[in-house]
Amino acid sequence: MVFSYEFSVDTRGFCDIHDITPEVKKAVDISGISNGLVCVFVNGSTAGVTTCEYEPGLVKDLKEAFERLAPQSGEYHHNMAWGDGNGFSHVRASLLGAGMCVPLSGGRLILGMWQQIILVDFDNRKRRREVIVQIVGE
Amino acid sequence: MVFSYEFSVDTRGFCDIHDITPEVKKAVDISGISNGLVCVFVNGSTAGVTTCEYEPGLVKDLKEAFERLAPQSGEYHHNMAWGDGNGFSHVRASLLGAGMCVPLSGGRLILGMWQQIILVDFDNRKRRREVIVQIVGE
Amino acid sequence: MVFSYEFSVDTRGFCDIHDITPEVKKAVDISGISNGLVCVFVNGSTAGVTTCEYEPGLVKDLKEAFERLAPQSGEYHHNMAWGDGNGFSHVRASLLGAGMCVPLSGGRLILGMWQQIILVDFDNRKRRREVIVQIVGE
Repeated sequence: MVFSYEFSVDTRGFCDIHDITPEVKKAVDISGISNGLVCVFVNGSTAGVTTCEYEPGLVKDLKEAFERLAPQSGEYHHNMAWGDGNGFSHVRASLLGAGMCVPLSGGRLILGMWQQIILVDFDNRKRRREVIVQIVGE
Repeated sequence: MVFSYEFSVDTRGFCDIHDITPEVKKAVDISGISNGLVCVFVNGSTAGVTTCEYEPGLVKDLKEAFERLAPQSGEYHHNMAWGDGNGFSHVRASLLGAGMCVPLSGGRLILGMWQQIILVDFDNRKRRREVIVQIVGE
Repeated sequence: MVFSYEFSVDTRGFCDIHDITPEVKKAVDISGISNGLVCVFVNGSTAGVTTCEYEPGLVKDLKEAFERLAPQSGEYHHNMAWGDGNGFSHVRASLLGAGMCVPLSGGRLILGMWQQIILVDFDNRKRRREVIVQIVGE
């Protein structure tokens, strides 16, 4: 069985981090699938998905880590050609990855107690992001 | 068909790297599934999964790379709030990712000859890690 | 249903980036599968797969970002032991990840308009890379 679910998240950009675990769980509940794989994916080239302990300190720490990885004030060839100034956003998104799979067992996402699924929007402006939850299983 | 397998790994933290390919292969063998996807996932927010050529030199190189990415001695908001001192571990884990999928074809994981699946424990103490192998296929 | 497809890409190494979206789409078309997950995976320890807006500026930006992450001229234990000089390639590949999953819905890969699937070859020489597209769905 395959089940697709989509939801949108209003983001502010600049490494805006959202806990999307509740929406992913909702997709699992609606799907009726108990065992399989849950792929969480954002269709865009300036955002990504990963897991973290979602608490205010780590949210700041992640922003600072991405700033070290690809500084906003750095020079990017993308900016020179396109002038939209979000070269840093693209680079960060490619390094993090647009999606991830989480095991689903007995109707439950197999996450740690302090492990949430997060959407990270790296763009340099507000966006409405579409997140796809694709569940394959039985 | 969906098959779930779980095993534990005793780790020492501080970027402790384990070759878990044999356990993943064992899960594949037990499953009886020949073709599909094998998701290898660690349910925790201070560990991750990726692949590498598992040899002592690269194990050291990866530790040094993660130290550059998120230095242990850096300042982390997580540490200030919680006092458990593992902000660096969390940041590294979010950047690496908690899991990955490997194609399964003809009963065989499609890995390169020098490519092993590794568990990386970033925490700042000993842990017993649970690794989930979730196989979807036929 | 499970469908496997493989294609090869001739690469030049040194962070050589190829847009492989057309080949992945071709695999989807041949498979006849409409809904599910598409895993794109490179079986090797010095290459990786991610998404980006594939345009010449960002291709350069990504090369520069990987050079910051694991400089080619850095010192690597792998090089000291093996003498093949590609320690930087291995480290970059482990950080990026060897594969990713993309949702497939209504026969279409759910990618953004400016989001392509890319193969990144980090090795320090020419290679012929095998990329596996593993589709699970219905």
